[in-house]
Amino acid sequence: MRVQHQLKTGSYKAAGFIGDKQRLVHDTVIPYQYDVLRDRAEDTEKSHVYQNFVNAAAALKGEDTGDGFYGMVFQDSDAAKWIEAAAFSLANTPDPELERQADDFIAVIAASQDEDGYLDTYFTIDNREKRYTNLLEAHELYCAGHMIEAACAYYEATGKRTLLDAMHKNALHLYDVFITKGHEGFPGHPEVELALMKLYRVTGDERCFELAKHFVDKRGTDPDFYKKELSRRNWQVWGNDASNNEYQQSDKPVRRLENATGHAVRAVYLYTAMADIAAETGERELYDACVRLWNSITRKRMYVTGAIGSTVLGEAFTVDYDLPSDTAYAETCASCGLMFFASRMLENEVKGEYADVMELAFYNTVLAGMQLDGKRFFYVNPLEVIPGISGVSPTHKHDLTTRPKWYACACCPPNVARTIGAFGKYAYGESEDTAYCHMFAAGEVSFENGLRLECKTGYPYEMEVTYKVTGKGRLAVHIPSWSKKTLFTADVKPCVPIVEDGYAYFDIDGEREITITLDGEPRLIYSTPKIYALTGKACIRRGPLIYCFEGADNGGCVTDIRLEKTAKPTPAGRRGELDNAVMLDVDALKLCFKGEGLYSDTAPKYDKVTARAIPYYTWGNRGENQMRVWADIL
Amino acid sequence: MRVQHQLKTGSYKAAGFIGDKQRLVHDTVIPYQYDVLRDRAEDTEKSHVYQNFVNAAAALKGEDTGDGFYGMVFQDSDAAKWIEAAAFSLANTPDPELERQADDFIAVIAASQDEDGYLDTYFTIDNREKRYTNLLEAHELYCAGHMIEAACAYYEATGKRTLLDAMHKNALHLYDVFITKGHEGFPGHPEVELALMKLYRVTGDERCFELAKHFVDKRGTDPDFYKKELSRRNWQVWGNDASNNEYQQSDKPVRRLENATGHAVRAVYLYTAMADIAAETGERELYDACVRLWNSITRKRMYVTGAIGSTVLGEAFTVDYDLPSDTAYAETCASCGLMFFASRMLENEVKGEYADVMELAFYNTVLAGMQLDGKRFFYVNPLEVIPGISGVSPTHKHDLTTRPKWYACACCPPNVARTIGAFGKYAYGESEDTAYCHMFAAGEVSFENGLRLECKTGYPYEMEVTYKVTGKGRLAVHIPSWSKKTLFTADVKPCVPIVEDGYAYFDIDGEREITITLDGEPRLIYSTPKIYALTGKACIRRGPLIYCFEGADNGGCVTDIRLEKTAKPTPAGRRGELDNAVMLDVDALKLCFKGEGLYSDTAPKYDKVTARAIPYYTWGNRGENQMRVWADIL
Repeated sequence: MRVQHQLKTGSYKAAGFIGDKQRLVHDTVIPYQYDVLRDRAEDTEKSHVYQNFVNAAAALKGEDTGDGFYGMVFQDSDAAKWIEAAAFSLANTPDPELERQADDFIAVIAASQDEDGYLDTYFTIDNREKRYTNLLEAHELYCAGHMIEAACAYYEATGKRTLLDAMHKNALHLYDVFITKGHEGFPGHPEVELALMKLYRVTGDERCFELAKHFVDKRGTDPDFYKKELSRRNWQVWGNDASNNEYQQSDKPVRRLENATGHAVRAVYLYTAMADIAAETGERELYDACVRLWNSITRKRMYVTGAIGSTVLGEAFTVDYDLPSDTAYAETCASCGLMFFASRMLENEVKGEYADVMELAFYNTVLAGMQLDGKRFFYVNPLEVIPGISGVSPTHKHDLTTRPKWYACACCPPNVARTIGAFGKYAYGESEDTAYCHMFAAGEVSFENGLRLECKTGYPYEMEVTYKVTGKGRLAVHIPSWSKKTLFTADVKPCVPIVEDGYAYFDIDGEREITITLDGEPRLIYSTPKIYALTGKACIRRGPLIYCFEGADNGGCVTDIRLEKTAKPTPAGRRGELDNAVMLDVDALKLCFKGEGLYSDTAPKYDKVTARAIPYYTWGNRGENQMRVWADIL
Repeated sequence: MRVQHQLKTGSYKAAGFIGDKQRLVHDTVIPYQYDVLRDRAEDTEKSHVYQNFVNAAAALKGEDTGDGFYGMVFQDSDAAKWIEAAAFSLANTPDPELERQADDFIAVIAASQDEDGYLDTYFTIDNREKRYTNLLEAHELYCAGHMIEAACAYYEATGKRTLLDAMHKNALHLYDVFITKGHEGFPGHPEVELALMKLYRVTGDERCFELAKHFVDKRGTDPDFYKKELSRRNWQVWGNDASNNEYQQSDKPVRRLENATGHAVRAVYLYTAMADIAAETGERELYDACVRLWNSITRKRMYVTGAIGSTVLGEAFTVDYDLPSDTAYAETCASCGLMFFASRMLENEVKGEYADVMELAFYNTVLAGMQLDGKRFFYVNPLEVIPGISGVSPTHKHDLTTRPKWYACACCPPNVARTIGAFGKYAYGESEDTAYCHMFAAGEVSFENGLRLECKTGYPYEMEVTYKVTGKGRLAVHIPSWSKKTLFTADVKPCVPIVEDGYAYFDIDGEREITITLDGEPRLIYSTPKIYALTGKACIRRGPLIYCFEGADNGGCVTDIRLEKTAKPTPAGRRGELDNAVMLDVDALKLCFKGEGLYSDTAPKYDKVTARAIPYYTWGNRGENQMRVWADIL
């Protein structure tokens, strides 16, 4: 039923900007993360992820489990995300050593699977009797979901079935527990649902689909479920509030949800599965709920950087228009999840706004999650950072000024890695007769429908994109809504294609060359005054990139920069060490406060200066300094 | 040694604005609070304060304590603050019924005093063995301090000694425990120190002074004290972090403190005692520490409204320049405490900046703490309120849009009442030969040094202040630093007095009439760009009053108001139902956001409007609506 769907792993060979990012992930991120999981990385918190599987396998055999389980209750998912990232990387860049590491890891994981298909080291090592007694907190189904995603990706990338078979068995075990035997409940942290949809497509086993839909359908039907579960168990992980159903997206059946609430990552993972199921079944009621949730996020609860989840308190959505820059949570993983959601919405309807948000989230928050050298990562992505306050003041402790190395809760680094690795799946899609380009991405693509294309572009910094397309069918290219003037040529001649809902359509029969020239004019962006934190401010956007001001380029201080209302930012060359980014210069005024102390009735003086802006995703790569996305305007 | 000191209770008979506020406190606040303490007020949380004393008295006699103790561990202090407020009110306005209520209350309190002088219902009813084992949390010395303050005030106001004698006995008990017997430690919540200084002055008993100084001197000498105390006890109140010495102002000996840290109320109560002792002894080292702390607050950590304590997390100071408007804590009590601190600093040195801050805190945050009808109270005083976010979003839960009736933790309402009641003590002071006017306050004053004055003024709304002074000596009048042009006449003739450190001095011999005309021009106030939350913004000040914009006067929305850089606010008449306040009108632009959704590259349009501002302390008296002190400037 899906109007179009993602590429198979390996169908896209990246070049250009995305190729560079994939190479960085392959060369730096994946090896480093492997060392972390093996507890070999220097200056890093203990991970113990690999050893947990070894110890769980020992537990199954009744052997000594050595140092037992260590880490967060969802520690296994770090392995899953690493394998998934490795799988995508192997599909892009063959690497026998990496494949050997992954095969070895998978063997250890498979050995930790119980006879009945159960697989979770936290429970297998020490807590077998607690299985499925704390769906609210214990992340069993979350870990299963990630391992299922890894299994699908690794099978698609390498053709190897060990993990796929193990996780298929695991899924059937879950089916047995939750459907055949009727164990009540649904995951505290959604993830298994979207994973089961992937497994359903890879294996063709309808029970996977049935179980995914079961969890989605069950959710919120009994708002007291988690309270009842709590009353039945005598253990806890963090002591989550079992009655805060809004937080766990279980206050009502999902088809009646209106607002994006609660833990932001959980929310978008759930909505991704809902949209996936709606696309699969064509169910209008479920898709309508997805549209409402999409609108709740993108029209009321999303940062200009495509980040979501305003508050550190529960890593959560708050209320409409509450989008503070300085205390933002804006978790990297949540923007990965927003891309997933957008991608599934596109499988229901090919609409430019879905692709717009997907691109926004990727080029700004997801990329900002990783240092340019691939060695350090942000979990939290504030839009304003003031050394001395950010990371220090009790309300700003989570908003760090520079990326740390690795987290005890290491969800974001591998999430960035797998999202970059699978970029082709988000950038391209296909239907029976059409090749879809949702995001511009240099490289070569083979579609299952027989179309092939090669995309050449220096995007996101250069605005010309050329497609050489061969085959018979249609090419559909998303034209971002930020491109106010877009020029098209077909076989070197100007043309005016049909553009519908943000997509330009071209008929292909044989070989055609389509060139698209996007609008590269940097523009000031303003917010609705409903976002009270942003009144009187503007930020700069060029193409898909939101810019920011950083102290390093502006004499140390950026809080004194004010943009003239008529300011026109202009490109100011590339900056090699900042990802070869196009910098922007803009006429500005530097405020000179003449008063003493904190407050003064002496009007400030302004000095004319040229302020320099850099892409938001490149901030924090030159040590601790001030950063601000939204500048005051005059 | 003090260069000047506060008036004795009863020496100032208020008229005008202060007289009206004192009448409101007398007619409405004190009777209402009395009903609360007696559990007779409707729609109010249970207080049980009076009954706690009754039950404690029963416990002492080995009788049935009925329903035992109820409330916060510092519940007794509500009684103390009420008696203190009643005392000041009785000094201003004789009221036999109120005096009877207070006498009765005092009798019950005195009956709850143990033989050895101990007095605290929480411990006397149920927990006698826990006395002084949890100085960190249990507020025993805090409660004693408030009751000592009440005793001093009631004695000064009525000449009645019951409570004074009881609390003198209590102080000697404390002396016995902490000095004679050498029980280690110092109060988790400073308060008893400043109270003992009052008791020392009322009784002349040097042991009170010695004990106050002992607590101040001991503080921070052993940074592990609270940890050791924790290890010795097996009970807790809230589980406060015993190692967070910065939070309890005990990280170093007080003479080495550099920054205002931790719980804001505790901080300023401590600094008040330090300044008081420094004035008493003339010790330079201690005063220097006070000056550093004063500067830390007023030059780096204070809101433009004289509010302090930026964060709800621990009701605390955070770091320099971290002064968010919307998530401010800005506790009413902390601004009362800042007034106390300022008042004691003036006893060390007569400097205009101390009086400036005292006035700022009073006319803005302290007064804002109380609804204009005296019936509801703010604990937290944000500088920006957005219905739908304020009081709702997890990070804004504490920032309410309207004043609630009464709190389980009811410290602020009676603190406002007693501060208004004792206004004469802050507004006027005296030395051997000089009458000091630190704040303008209509009414009549008799000084112990023989000078008398009558002040006539419609201040803070009218800018002419006339003093009729009789006697022999000097009159010293604080000229606020906001008054850029001040005119003086002496006996109807223009004059140019000596002005030193913000005080104008006039020689008095016989009868003189001094008239001071202050600068009533409203002005825009700007902040240093170091306060990142306020860049691009300005607020309005007229006289001592900070103004704000409220939705009720501005078509519902104030986040869309932008002030022109050249804007000149002008008085726009008085508003009867808003305390007869002078409103201000100012040319402004209303932003019209043309974009859809959250963000747009369409520059907003502006419509010229006249925006109306009202004094900050009068906000929130017309139901829930938007409020903003700092507006964006163009």
